[in-house]
Amino acid sequence: MRGVVMFAPGDVRVVDREDPEIVEPTDAIIRLTATCICGSDLWPYRGIEPAEHTLMGHEYVGVVEEIGADVHTLKVGDFVVGSFCISDNTCEICRSGFQSRCVHGSFVAAAIGTQSEFARIPYADGTLVATPTMPEPELIPSLLAASDVLGTGWFAADAAAAGPGKTIAVVGDGAVGLMGVLAAKQLGAERIIAMSRHPERQALAREFGATDIVETRGDEGAAAIKDLTNGLGAHGVIEAVGTQESMMQAINSTCPGGHVGYVGVAHDGVTLPADQLFFAEVHLLGGPAPVRRFLPDLIDRIWKRSIDPGKVFDLTLPLDRAPDGYRAMDERRAVKTLLTL
Amino acid sequence: MRGVVMFAPGDVRVVDREDPEIVEPTDAIIRLTATCICGSDLWPYRGIEPAEHTLMGHEYVGVVEEIGADVHTLKVGDFVVGSFCISDNTCEICRSGFQSRCVHGSFVAAAIGTQSEFARIPYADGTLVATPTMPEPELIPSLLAASDVLGTGWFAADAAAAGPGKTIAVVGDGAVGLMGVLAAKQLGAERIIAMSRHPERQALAREFGATDIVETRGDEGAAAIKDLTNGLGAHGVIEAVGTQESMMQAINSTCPGGHVGYVGVAHDGVTLPADQLFFAEVHLLGGPAPVRRFLPDLIDRIWKRSIDPGKVFDLTLPLDRAPDGYRAMDERRAVKTLLTL
Repeated sequence: MRGVVMFAPGDVRVVDREDPEIVEPTDAIIRLTATCICGSDLWPYRGIEPAEHTLMGHEYVGVVEEIGADVHTLKVGDFVVGSFCISDNTCEICRSGFQSRCVHGSFVAAAIGTQSEFARIPYADGTLVATPTMPEPELIPSLLAASDVLGTGWFAADAAAAGPGKTIAVVGDGAVGLMGVLAAKQLGAERIIAMSRHPERQALAREFGATDIVETRGDEGAAAIKDLTNGLGAHGVIEAVGTQESMMQAINSTCPGGHVGYVGVAHDGVTLPADQLFFAEVHLLGGPAPVRRFLPDLIDRIWKRSIDPGKVFDLTLPLDRAPDGYRAMDERRAVKTLLTL
Repeated sequence: MRGVVMFAPGDVRVVDREDPEIVEPTDAIIRLTATCICGSDLWPYRGIEPAEHTLMGHEYVGVVEEIGADVHTLKVGDFVVGSFCISDNTCEICRSGFQSRCVHGSFVAAAIGTQSEFARIPYADGTLVATPTMPEPELIPSLLAASDVLGTGWFAADAAAAGPGKTIAVVGDGAVGLMGVLAAKQLGAERIIAMSRHPERQALAREFGATDIVETRGDEGAAAIKDLTNGLGAHGVIEAVGTQESMMQAINSTCPGGHVGYVGVAHDGVTLPADQLFFAEVHLLGGPAPVRRFLPDLIDRIWKRSIDPGKVFDLTLPLDRAPDGYRAMDERRAVKTLLTL
């Protein structure tokens, strides 16, 4: 089969890979319908993380091609959406809603690589969710978004305690931040402040539900949020970048007793000063999103056409042109690239 | 009046101070019945924080001596318990349960200094809670404990989501950690693991409700907690120290999706690596405890003799011997010193 491999930073190629096969009885093999490039794929692309013949891709929707003997909730021919984290969905951690830290968990990235024609998904019952029937083609981008970028934004909005009457600020105007805006809106937030300095992303943020835009960053950005909230700070803040500045901007933009949901992948060297955290007195929750917790609800909202997260894809290319997709995102010509098969 | 002043690190004296007077109409003057020395008073005593003619004390119970024109919930002669944080208890932050960050808030420490005969308490309605009648003398230590050490342990247990069926670990066997054990027990925790290497504190922890003791610290301590919890970690961890080691020990002892409640005053230089925090995926909440939120409930439990947190005081001295109390705590001969008036 064809699949995307990053040979070295900046060197992405579509190559022949071995077809996956059932290994464990809980596995399923899916034929990909669509996949995409994640903002986190740019870290190795830019040499900030290692890349050495790395299999790429962790977002996916597709059709079940084959199932192992112990797969019970899915059948061959089902259209499925899967999380970027493998989970059995039965262990104590999964049952508490943190399927991204399942005791049998692993990341789809690297080990599987779903920028490919087929993929073997372990713990298929616990990782994949079938749609009611075969989806209309126009729903595919939104269902694909649920796999990570929407699910991650949703987790962040949930961790930021977005809800009726709440003011939510969003740090980061990438795809995840934009999905955080959409999620906060869906969860009933009254006011949503998108922090962005790019006119086209501001427009998308407003389309997804942002009521205010703040263009400044860092301490200045946090001060701007306080100015908009009677000096108190937002009730909840979504952090979707993962840098030192963005983390502190999020914490300092939150009102005392408020909630920070952080999903920007924190990189080596980012540290939170404990004394500032102590006196900020905010709830902090973040990490790899337990997308599986939210998938049934997200699929339902997409199926009913209540939300259209697929709009976050502003570039669509066939899998064979994946390298162009990486380039477009690296050069910020695209927010997020969908790859068709 | 007499009051405790720290002239320099290690130099604590009982001196004459001016009697306080009503300044604002929302003030009350109280005559102290008892006060005490806090573990945090040892930071300046040991020179880790500055001390220069600092007024000492922030825990207090007493009788209302005089009230300002705008005090409505208290009357002269009421016996009151107050929080170590001044709060109006009406602002948005107070109403959300974070009275320790009230928009009109301040710390009792330094500005007021309740190791003294009298104290002026601003925002008396929002800071003080009256007991139903004059308490029996044997309830005084427990009511005094509610002012900070019990209220702080309770907040930590609440932030650690202690409740039925939960396993809670407690990092720190000082007075606050011991009160955290008591709080976790009261909140219904099934299993309470106290981390302590001091036999007498282990005994007190068991008396307050600890079911297990772990003597190791740091990574070894966290590993011991995982061994006791099927490799997962405790559902909730109370952090009551405030050092780099104790914070990481708490985070690493918590199961994914679990809760860390941290109340050890974090000092300069303690930093949390964001990548470790990201992949730990735990809820983090801490800071100065909003004791006022819990005071009515705590007074009620003490009044009914359901809890006896006053046991945490293992040394009682008259105010004039405060210097001996500081010395005993500094030399770890006492967990916590009560000062009578």
